[in-house]
Amino acid sequence: MSDRDVELLSIGSELLLGETVDTNAAFLGAELARIGLRLRLVRQLPDDVGIIADAFAEARGRRAVVLATGGLGPTHDDLTRDGLAGSLGEPLTEDPALRAELEERFRAYGRMPASNLRQAMVIPSAEILPNPIGSASGWWVERDGSVTVLLPGVPAEMRRMWTEEVRPRIARRFTLPPLVIRTVKAFGIGESMAAERLGDLLDAPPHGVEAGIYARDDGVHVRFSTAGDPGLLDEPVAAALDALGDDAYGTDDDDLASAVLGALGRGGVATLATWEADTGGALLAILAATSPAEGSARFVGGLLDAGGAASAPIADVLLQLALPAQDAHGRSRVEVAMSGRIPLARRTLRIHGSGPQRLRRAAFAALDAVRRELSSSDR
Amino acid sequence: MSDRDVELLSIGSELLLGETVDTNAAFLGAELARIGLRLRLVRQLPDDVGIIADAFAEARGRRAVVLATGGLGPTHDDLTRDGLAGSLGEPLTEDPALRAELEERFRAYGRMPASNLRQAMVIPSAEILPNPIGSASGWWVERDGSVTVLLPGVPAEMRRMWTEEVRPRIARRFTLPPLVIRTVKAFGIGESMAAERLGDLLDAPPHGVEAGIYARDDGVHVRFSTAGDPGLLDEPVAAALDALGDDAYGTDDDDLASAVLGALGRGGVATLATWEADTGGALLAILAATSPAEGSARFVGGLLDAGGAASAPIADVLLQLALPAQDAHGRSRVEVAMSGRIPLARRTLRIHGSGPQRLRRAAFAALDAVRRELSSSDR
Repeated sequence: MSDRDVELLSIGSELLLGETVDTNAAFLGAELARIGLRLRLVRQLPDDVGIIADAFAEARGRRAVVLATGGLGPTHDDLTRDGLAGSLGEPLTEDPALRAELEERFRAYGRMPASNLRQAMVIPSAEILPNPIGSASGWWVERDGSVTVLLPGVPAEMRRMWTEEVRPRIARRFTLPPLVIRTVKAFGIGESMAAERLGDLLDAPPHGVEAGIYARDDGVHVRFSTAGDPGLLDEPVAAALDALGDDAYGTDDDDLASAVLGALGRGGVATLATWEADTGGALLAILAATSPAEGSARFVGGLLDAGGAASAPIADVLLQLALPAQDAHGRSRVEVAMSGRIPLARRTLRIHGSGPQRLRRAAFAALDAVRRELSSSDR
Repeated sequence: MSDRDVELLSIGSELLLGETVDTNAAFLGAELARIGLRLRLVRQLPDDVGIIADAFAEARGRRAVVLATGGLGPTHDDLTRDGLAGSLGEPLTEDPALRAELEERFRAYGRMPASNLRQAMVIPSAEILPNPIGSASGWWVERDGSVTVLLPGVPAEMRRMWTEEVRPRIARRFTLPPLVIRTVKAFGIGESMAAERLGDLLDAPPHGVEAGIYARDDGVHVRFSTAGDPGLLDEPVAAALDALGDDAYGTDDDDLASAVLGALGRGGVATLATWEADTGGALLAILAATSPAEGSARFVGGLLDAGGAASAPIADVLLQLALPAQDAHGRSRVEVAMSGRIPLARRTLRIHGSGPQRLRRAAFAALDAVRRELSSSDR
């Protein structure tokens, strides 16, 4: 058992039925590499308490750290707590402080559904990890020389708990040199042609450096990594940029859309709009998801297959959505209105969540407000 | 070993380093359920030939079908072929017909890089699965009563090969009743409150029906599934819609954005535009990804944080992208132009790919054209 090897159990039948994509695994893989740990295996498991218990036993026997995401909700198919308790042979009992916290959390909405009491059950070895933005607490369990951590499955809650609670504890316990990763990105060249141009940079990288190459929608990514001195990567990165020439568009977090917005900004352009036909809004979706650097042109919107008359009045109705800053409790007020053929008076909606989830929830809340308005006027 | 149990090996260090999200697993999980097979375990594995060989041996010992995605590319870290060959104790030799096909494929681009010859190596038990949209062929291997299938990691290539080659072969070999899934979706209600309203529908669904509930950004999803008569699901779906009342917005493939576009269309609205502030374009991204039904309002675009003047000229530059239909060989020509402060004369670019990947590649190709133009004018 290497003392830097980690195994992740992604728990939930919805993963195996293909109803949810496991984005948590990619997030945790990248985070672990940054602090010098190595994710060696991810297993997606169904909501089956026997399978979950066996997987914990097997993983705890061979890894320094076992992480699990999901299965901490309030309903009958949330079985991660039961699985770990069974695997460790420890009893689950109600934690009065945790129960009081849950009840307090639900006070704002009225009473707490009885099923949420499942979320107050703990085992003696577990230290509770708080979750201020959801009802699923995490567990930190140290026993028999290994660490097991239970995290919520909702990505925003998992990421917050990882960053605030778990990563600092792991960093204190394991003092390992981080894996440093540098990526060179190119567009307009195939993977095997790029590999040929890179030659020994890929096949025989400098001692202590690993190299890899991947084909992506946004081009070819060449990755160099080391657990040694980060300076070891400077020379292969520079050599790869040189070998790829004009086809290279950036390194690391650079992306094509940011590269374009940056270049436009340097050319004196303040704002960019787009018009696209038959692309399903792909360009708009990519630009809308981009966070350009200071001094870049700002993307202000796009039209889909709308005849090219970019300065004409846009549509029969205009749905407007504004999202002021969130308050100290993580609550946000969303303002929604619609003008044109079917007007909708401005209204304020409340949402929870943070990060990208908060933005998506604001958008869904706006859509739901329109749906409810139209469904009541249908009657 | 149940004769409907499947295991998936998702192969690639980029998965464990968090550089790629494993969307293939969700796709295959949903597809397998539809034809009556059950994905019991997904394992994400690194590019390590020993680990890959051991995983094939273990999975083939306990499952009727073993699928693997990824690791079929041309470079030195593509080790899935070697791993399976090692696990089966069969030699890898070059297939002359496959080599000729690869060389033909590369003729249009000039010569073939030598590393692509790796993709012509096969074992005696393997039947080759063609890949007309990429250089990575698949393998279908029947030995010792079990089936092992190697699929490419690039999602568009994997999906095409699954649908055209693998699914029909599996359906011929396994005649199993499909798992039928129905989903009821609601917004504006929490998961535990919804569970309480649903009561016995979740805790004690009808005989032969399984029930589950999940919290998502777009609301609460209640899932009913059966491997028996699909009619068994009618009653619980109707009862769930009834219990959730106004909070329910649809079933199955319905989504909030389509519901709104449909309701607007029924209200006589032909086109919808949006304006949003501080949401990072979340509303626009969701609407742009929606395929509304016939008779719905059409989403024509959105403005981000642009001062609300929806009918003013939009921006300093307007980037235009049109994507005509693809030709018989799956090639598409993309037309790109830019007007305004920095004009870019209309040009035609070639891309490959199909489905959503084709759209994203068109968008990236347009961005790359602007990048190249501006980077040459920087000099």
